Amino acid sequence: MSWSDPGTPGWPGKPGTDASTPRSPGPGSPDAARTLFRGGTSTPTAGWAPGWTQANLISVPADWAYDVLLFCQRNPKPCPVLDVTDAGDTSSVLAPGADLRTDLPAYRVWEHGELVDEPAEVTGRWRGDLVTFLIGCSFTFEWALGDAGVPLRHVEQERNVAMYVTDRECRPGGRLRGSMVVSMRPVPEHLLETATEVTRRMPAVHGAPVHSGDPSAIGITDLDRPDFGDRIEVPPGDVPVFWACGVTPQAAVMTSRPPFAITHAPGRMLITDVRDDQYLLA
Amino acid sequence: MSWSDPGTPGWPGKPGTDASTPRSPGPGSPDAARTLFRGGTSTPTAGWAPGWTQANLISVPADWAYDVLLFCQRNPKPCPVLDVTDAGDTSSVLAPGADLRTDLPAYRVWEHGELVDEPAEVTGRWRGDLVTFLIGCSFTFEWALGDAGVPLRHVEQERNVAMYVTDRECRPGGRLRGSMVVSMRPVPEHLLETATEVTRRMPAVHGAPVHSGDPSAIGITDLDRPDFGDRIEVPPGDVPVFWACGVTPQAAVMTSRPPFAITHAPGRMLITDVRDDQYLLA
Repeated sequence: MSWSDPGTPGWPGKPGTDASTPRSPGPGSPDAARTLFRGGTSTPTAGWAPGWTQANLISVPADWAYDVLLFCQRNPKPCPVLDVTDAGDTSSVLAPGADLRTDLPAYRVWEHGELVDEPAEVTGRWRGDLVTFLIGCSFTFEWALGDAGVPLRHVEQERNVAMYVTDRECRPGGRLRGSMVVSMRPVPEHLLETATEVTRRMPAVHGAPVHSGDPSAIGITDLDRPDFGDRIEVPPGDVPVFWACGVTPQAAVMTSRPPFAITHAPGRMLITDVRDDQYLLA
Repeated sequence: MSWSDPGTPGWPGKPGTDASTPRSPGPGSPDAARTLFRGGTSTPTAGWAPGWTQANLISVPADWAYDVLLFCQRNPKPCPVLDVTDAGDTSSVLAPGADLRTDLPAYRVWEHGELVDEPAEVTGRWRGDLVTFLIGCSFTFEWALGDAGVPLRHVEQERNVAMYVTDRECRPGGRLRGSMVVSMRPVPEHLLETATEVTRRMPAVHGAPVHSGDPSAIGITDLDRPDFGDRIEVPPGDVPVFWACGVTPQAAVMTSRPPFAITHAPGRMLITDVRDDQYLLA
């Protein structure tokens, strides 16, 4: 008999990143995608690298790391932490071969809560005291939705997912506070239950929807004007469904104004070497 | 339509501690148990307050809080964080009416990794800079085990559960490092699958077992000499089953020697006002 949930040795319970994790070969692989992004390709990552976990990124100076980690711990639905690096690290156990400074399609650079740049890589902006948080992303469960027959309208429409700042205040963590951000996917009404059940089983990547139907119930005044990403057409018979979103820490940066932060550009995620079923609860 | 997983307003995704949470009346209630403990009753809490979530406690000075939170984030199986207080707070949202300094049956006080006291309350030891971590406890899933027909040998034998330090190193978090601690329950061999399935659905209170069978496979040399708690007899036909344990941070304190820490005494937990099914994944 053996450890029933070993993960990597020394990682009790951590979803596996062990060397035996299979990698899909070719352009659908995390490596191939990251190589393209490192070379300058900038695109939303929805639909990329089927079956691999995608992650939001936020890097802050070490003296803000506790605030971010506490904020995430207190708001696990929008901010499920998949990894935290040590200060200055430029890679993560979730993607050992990736360089966190170059391998995402696009970044955002923040000073005192103001967006000051949206570059393709941040090598020149990097600091030795930056702690990086990788946070679960709903793109990870889109494959499961597709497998269950739920159409992905933003992929069909070749657009980034639509994201909105809601009126739901997160529980503050230290100096960090802000409202929950949600991503929206139109779902045919008869598949609403299916979409809920499929995603409920993946709490590490936001889990079940937080709302469906009337956008104004969560403080969204105009579905056609998302705060991040693209407008998505809601076909007749579809209902807008809202999932907690890992852009929430970015909204908290805008509200709480730490002196410096780097984040991914919304919808342009880190593609990791972790299979999405590692975060599936049986 | 409405928020499908509202939790407390402003707590996106946090298991509910809302005012409408029903409380069982009488001696089985969290309040009644805590009142007894506040009055001096010292006993393991296994079997107390049926259906209510129990929690491990560790309080450290604020300048060690990031190390503890990072250690827990990196080792979610033994250290699932249910709440983190702000510095100096003496209560938690998980049990608003409880005083964290007096309402556990017994505490341990640590200086530089040495156990210096095991008092019934810690009011005199409290400091304004203490941050308290409440961590999921496997006593929470014992009711689900019982409901599924799995006998609880330590309760039958009127003993504290047996706990052991394993040879599995946790992933370090800042200055905090140490080995994983496990709790052991004998399970009739034909119920092993049942016990695994029942607990797998409760990852916030340690989830599925990390091992079953040969104790030496995880570095336990003598089952009759637990590192914490009591020796439990393993009846013929039973198999020893090991779950990750929230005493793990205590072992890390012994190894890593922060200048000061307060913990619960092993097996003598905080009983919260949160129903255990709040941590059940459907």
